[in-house]
Amino acid sequence: MKTVYSPAHAAHAPRHEISDGTLKPAVETPQRAEIVLSAVQAAGLGPIVAPDPIERAFLETVHDPAYVAFLETMWAQHRALGRAEEEAFPFVWPTPGLRSDRAPIHLDGRLGFYSFDAGTPLTAGTFDAALSSASTAVSGAALLSAGERAAFALCRPPGHHAMRARYGGYCFFNNAALAAERLVADGRRVAILDLDYHHGNGTQEIFWERGDVLFVSIHADPAEEYPYFLGHADEIGAGHGEGATFNLPLAVGADWETWSHALELALATIERAGPDALVVSLGLDPFEGDPISRFKLKTYDFSRLGTRLSKLGLPVLFVLEGGYAVDALGENCAAVLTGFEAG
Amino acid sequence: MKTVYSPAHAAHAPRHEISDGTLKPAVETPQRAEIVLSAVQAAGLGPIVAPDPIERAFLETVHDPAYVAFLETMWAQHRALGRAEEEAFPFVWPTPGLRSDRAPIHLDGRLGFYSFDAGTPLTAGTFDAALSSASTAVSGAALLSAGERAAFALCRPPGHHAMRARYGGYCFFNNAALAAERLVADGRRVAILDLDYHHGNGTQEIFWERGDVLFVSIHADPAEEYPYFLGHADEIGAGHGEGATFNLPLAVGADWETWSHALELALATIERAGPDALVVSLGLDPFEGDPISRFKLKTYDFSRLGTRLSKLGLPVLFVLEGGYAVDALGENCAAVLTGFEAG
Repeated sequence: MKTVYSPAHAAHAPRHEISDGTLKPAVETPQRAEIVLSAVQAAGLGPIVAPDPIERAFLETVHDPAYVAFLETMWAQHRALGRAEEEAFPFVWPTPGLRSDRAPIHLDGRLGFYSFDAGTPLTAGTFDAALSSASTAVSGAALLSAGERAAFALCRPPGHHAMRARYGGYCFFNNAALAAERLVADGRRVAILDLDYHHGNGTQEIFWERGDVLFVSIHADPAEEYPYFLGHADEIGAGHGEGATFNLPLAVGADWETWSHALELALATIERAGPDALVVSLGLDPFEGDPISRFKLKTYDFSRLGTRLSKLGLPVLFVLEGGYAVDALGENCAAVLTGFEAG
Repeated sequence: MKTVYSPAHAAHAPRHEISDGTLKPAVETPQRAEIVLSAVQAAGLGPIVAPDPIERAFLETVHDPAYVAFLETMWAQHRALGRAEEEAFPFVWPTPGLRSDRAPIHLDGRLGFYSFDAGTPLTAGTFDAALSSASTAVSGAALLSAGERAAFALCRPPGHHAMRARYGGYCFFNNAALAAERLVADGRRVAILDLDYHHGNGTQEIFWERGDVLFVSIHADPAEEYPYFLGHADEIGAGHGEGATFNLPLAVGADWETWSHALELALATIERAGPDALVVSLGLDPFEGDPISRFKLKTYDFSRLGTRLSKLGLPVLFVLEGGYAVDALGENCAAVLTGFEAG
């Protein structure tokens, strides 16, 4: 299996994030991708290939052009205000009862207009790194279109929380959605299986009214876990997309027995839909040792996950999402991918 | 003129707020109210009287009971999570595209569900202080109902950003809205004139569909200033309230000439409506020396503002809102009130 990777992700190297009401050391760091890269190399998974740059017009099929322009220009605006901080954070949002039809002019208004959380740092290098991550996903999809059975898009920053026009959850561009869109453009019928501990609110929003991309997600119950405001079982899509969203929220504390039962339900739904390709939003944070998550998967559970996915017989693109147990991250990722190759 | 005041506000004494993406010393502090109290005493304005406690049922005519219960219980939940921080801050919000129909169970979800910004600290004493501030406003309104020509509700924390079910902008309960509701209950037709530098998004939202309370506001253009997502000139109310909201957003940098022109437009609108009582949301942050605002009013401008308001010939309740130039805050507040008495 080829791994698509670019070192350009390292341009987004925040030192801080806001969590629990205070500035803490960032957990979504360049080290994450470097550890995963080392692990797939050590596992002998296959060649590491560089992505082709994503085309702006294609990026804007998934993301609002005004949002893309915001991410491109926000750091210049931050500097023009004379701000010395190395990260920019929003602090006010257009919640219900407030207006979301007009983008403010001031940076602080724009930061809130184009985001949904306070914890995701923007830095001088965020736009370039996010573009590189999006490029990685789309190049991974192109490998499937070229006939590969599987590929691994080693994306960073992650993507599945990124909405059409809002960043959050450490995500800026929705890598999995862009990969799916690439496969659709290449004539495939696509399913996305999101295995990150946190619900993929961005991916769900992007395909909410689309019948041509199935979105299935296993994640912690949003009543108890981030992102809190999407990911309930009663969300099934709308319009042309009605029935093409399937959420499997699990109670905090789920272990392999509970989690793999949900996995079987997810895979049965995917098989019924009969896609030609599968995009897996691969969060490694269901791991028992993850510092910000509360599921109980072990490293060998990730291996059997990979093997189980292989048995679907579908072309699969793995897209890296979250996972913050930095030491174990590479091993768990390699477990999924080598498990897949062994299946 | 009587001043209603309770020292119970001091229970809300945050040390920090989040601003520009970092934890900074709080600007909305107990010292603000103490300075204003000293100034009205020094000015010989009149007796200082204690408020009667607000009734819960009356509070819930303006605020969602579930929101009131959230503010009452959030600190116990914070403690139960073992959190040692002296302030609690939200970090994710139900922005457009996310769901706002279900309150999460986890504190971090509830914090975002019931707020619209990241900069407003909740503390152990916030609920009691906010109740005391609401009581102060309602007792001020009762003075008008009892026949006083004017009264000053020395409220802290401030209120005009507080929405029916969301806190933000240092505000928890909407003191001015509660005072107006008290006057309506006592048979008055009420106008609210909001003079704070920042748009009173909470007050506007609460009365948006109400024809019996006129809301008029002079504030900085929300394209350039907090709260960014409400306060444009095209917002005029809806349903029974259509035409009963009137916003006068001004460009950053406005001085008395510009500001007082807007004031005349505001007062002409109020006079046309013919109310029996006026509630003034008195923010002192249009002051040229305010650290977080960008209008240019001088202390003597506040005096002529007071005198001009007196000439309306209406019973007036002044409700303290923002203003963060702590040294000048008391003097500017006394300028308005003594200017009114002199008019």
